[in-house]
Amino acid sequence: MTEPEAAEERPQDDVADLKSRVTELENRWRTTAADFDNFRKRTARDAEQLGEHERARAAGQWLPVLDNLDMALAHADADPASIVEGLRAVREQAGGVMARLGFPRREDEPGTPFDPAVHDAVSTAPGEPGTIVAVVRPGYGTAERPLRPAAVVVARQS
Amino acid sequence: MTEPEAAEERPQDDVADLKSRVTELENRWRTTAADFDNFRKRTARDAEQLGEHERARAAGQWLPVLDNLDMALAHADADPASIVEGLRAVREQAGGVMARLGFPRREDEPGTPFDPAVHDAVSTAPGEPGTIVAVVRPGYGTAERPLRPAAVVVARQS
Repeated sequence: MTEPEAAEERPQDDVADLKSRVTELENRWRTTAADFDNFRKRTARDAEQLGEHERARAAGQWLPVLDNLDMALAHADADPASIVEGLRAVREQAGGVMARLGFPRREDEPGTPFDPAVHDAVSTAPGEPGTIVAVVRPGYGTAERPLRPAAVVVARQS
Repeated sequence: MTEPEAAEERPQDDVADLKSRVTELENRWRTTAADFDNFRKRTARDAEQLGEHERARAAGQWLPVLDNLDMALAHADADPASIVEGLRAVREQAGGVMARLGFPRREDEPGTPFDPAVHDAVSTAPGEPGTIVAVVRPGYGTAERPLRPAAVVVARQS
């Protein structure tokens, strides 16, 4: 910081000072606006790349599942009995991928209270009212990050 | 735009004009900087949500594959012969999901020229030099968007 000048009236200098201040502020404002504009453009490109990156990362996790499906099929003719075992392993593996992606398979046991946030009632059957009698199709995801509700049979007063 | 004043020297007015110009520029600069800062913060949140959204969208596409795996297994005991057919359908479906995500399964026929960009040589066998003899594990993705190279047996002069 420069020392302020003595309080003598010097309008001509004031004008020069003010003019240089105006120029400085114009430059700063222009620079900030240009930085903002560049950031905006880069952000749009980044978002595209991020989406691409997430898709590739998620898809890559399925490769072992696909490979095991191939292998189960390749061995099917040689040993038909082994295919059920192979299929079970593939299902296990696929469930693991879903869990790692943040969407674990929901394990809704019969008797669980019905929760419209994660359950989708597709039919009813006699049972303890307000509970689930059976799961028709499992749900995936958590209450905070739901992917698909479980299709369930809900109990009604018999 | 206001008309410029007559060219009379009016230093006092100049100072007042310049001061108001300085105030105006300071406000504009401050506003732009604040907008930039808010945009930056919003961008960080958006990026997180975008990643989340892409993961959910990609994971959702696998649900029919998971359901069909469940169904193939459910029917395995009742009709063991149907399981191979079910498994073949699941593999077909899984390949379709990969293609929709942008990473189709590569179909490298024997005789295809070896391309280090999309092929990974794991062994050699007699054949037409520079070509593929067999695919050990299929590749996924395109030359522009590769996900995994195909593991192949390359031909060597016999």
